[in-house]
Amino acid sequence: MKFCMIGARGHSYYAYQVLKNLPEVQLTAIAPLGDLRAASLIQATAPWNPRQYDDWRAMLDREQPALVCIDGPFEQHAEMAAEALRRGIHVFCEKPVATTFAQLEMLEAAWRASGRHIRSMVGLRYDAAFLHAYRLVQAGAIGKIKLVRTQKSYKLGKRPEFYKRRDTYGGTIPWVGSHAIDWILYYTGDAFECVTAYHDATDNFDHGDLEIAAHCLFRLKNGVIADAGIDFLRPATAATHGDDRVRLAGTKGVLEVLGGKVHLIDADGDRVLDPPPADRDVFGDFVHELADGRPSLVTDEETFALARAILLARESADTLTTLHF
Amino acid sequence: MKFCMIGARGHSYYAYQVLKNLPEVQLTAIAPLGDLRAASLIQATAPWNPRQYDDWRAMLDREQPALVCIDGPFEQHAEMAAEALRRGIHVFCEKPVATTFAQLEMLEAAWRASGRHIRSMVGLRYDAAFLHAYRLVQAGAIGKIKLVRTQKSYKLGKRPEFYKRRDTYGGTIPWVGSHAIDWILYYTGDAFECVTAYHDATDNFDHGDLEIAAHCLFRLKNGVIADAGIDFLRPATAATHGDDRVRLAGTKGVLEVLGGKVHLIDADGDRVLDPPPADRDVFGDFVHELADGRPSLVTDEETFALARAILLARESADTLTTLHF
Repeated sequence: MKFCMIGARGHSYYAYQVLKNLPEVQLTAIAPLGDLRAASLIQATAPWNPRQYDDWRAMLDREQPALVCIDGPFEQHAEMAAEALRRGIHVFCEKPVATTFAQLEMLEAAWRASGRHIRSMVGLRYDAAFLHAYRLVQAGAIGKIKLVRTQKSYKLGKRPEFYKRRDTYGGTIPWVGSHAIDWILYYTGDAFECVTAYHDATDNFDHGDLEIAAHCLFRLKNGVIADAGIDFLRPATAATHGDDRVRLAGTKGVLEVLGGKVHLIDADGDRVLDPPPADRDVFGDFVHELADGRPSLVTDEETFALARAILLARESADTLTTLHF
Repeated sequence: MKFCMIGARGHSYYAYQVLKNLPEVQLTAIAPLGDLRAASLIQATAPWNPRQYDDWRAMLDREQPALVCIDGPFEQHAEMAAEALRRGIHVFCEKPVATTFAQLEMLEAAWRASGRHIRSMVGLRYDAAFLHAYRLVQAGAIGKIKLVRTQKSYKLGKRPEFYKRRDTYGGTIPWVGSHAIDWILYYTGDAFECVTAYHDATDNFDHGDLEIAAHCLFRLKNGVIADAGIDFLRPATAATHGDDRVRLAGTKGVLEVLGGKVHLIDADGDRVLDPPPADRDVFGDFVHELADGRPSLVTDEETFALARAILLARESADTLTTLHF
């Protein structure tokens, strides 16, 4: 499977860090675009000796890969992904796959016409604790889920300029919230019905349009109530960059991911579980689905459901209205 | 200060358990009303040898107390409290002080006309960890609060019949949510601007109208985003009845109350603080304010702000609309 990589702004390392375990994938070329982590991309992929392109379209045309990793500027994800799909190339894309509804519609149309697959980089589905929690939920550990709370809290630090403008950043709900909202889809397997969200760009330490805090409240089609709390207020002194959490309250128990552990309370009592190391990853999983037909833990449809949810949540926050899916 | 007690359905023990420390308070009579915890009330107050009444109005007329504790059926709180205020009696009232908007308006009018004070039983402001967190916030430990998340999770067990009907229970947002919503007022000192809430009475283990899960999302007047997650899904096996939490994210740090501890991350790092034992309590504080003028940690105005917030949140959930204060 010929493979190319475009850009190095976000999580393209999800792909290159597992390439050595994927002999079926041949990295033939990269287009680092001089972006944030271009040097890391070039260095990490050197063992595969990929050709380097300045022009990503030329790369797709000449290399004709089966699969491309897209991690360019956020506002160009949709255009790059659509161009790849139109060339018959499967797409592994940084989230959010679109930063506007117009981009999303264009991309979804390109996907439908292509017969190819697209997945966004929801790598936190595969984090050891979150993956273990998923398997427990699937095995019925907490019964029917009624209430979901998720959290993403990041350190802000000093962000590059593109974070300071809505047109190049997209917003904190899309960028940070993607994970928190994706966990809701992941654990419930349900569809969103409506969303009410707020976000706030004041007191953001001179980061322009960047929202320092946000909160999204969803109702799902089957009645599940779910919310995502999102902030950049984690102090620089904290032990880890992010404080990622999920709490799932069900009819048979409560399950929580907190501090990298899984906390489970069920009929057998209250205990903390050390998750085993993850045995799957988001890029390898996609490759296996394409190559061997083994289903990934995320689908194309969920990729678009997530993309729509974050844009609707951002619009809800911008307009102070409740929006229906 | 002559003192009487009406009813024993909820938290009237907040009053009688500290009576021995309040020599200025003379408990002269009780009207246990044959309610849920009547036997406990009678037994615990026996050392003061109070007269017992079947008719609480007759008790108020004959005893002419300065202060009354009201803990009757939920749907009668407002009527009992208004009757006391009209007799010039200060009121310490189980929350919610009203289960309908009509009751709330009637009660607020009676309060304004009375020149007397009313406080609802927001005892969790005085829990050791929550009180310590309050003092840290007041001292500026986390700077300006931007995001608040609160949680009340209770064991359901088998509840008495009155919990199964909206007209006698009031709803899970008023009953359980009061605390979670009160913490928002407590820590921010701000006023609510709007609320969007959901609640769900399905899968409630044969508890009629009782909502098993709820979630309320608020925007405050100064832009703070705050939410309260509320559920009765805590398994019977859990170590404690409730899992009470607050997380406050501010411009200078993150403070969290969890498992009875205070977790603080600020410029000095990440640490867990054991709170000192609480040196105040909700009933004693009210008595001291009345007797000595020392301000309590909660005001009459906050009592009504909370009462309005829970009714608006319940109405938001009932009507699937966002409501403004």
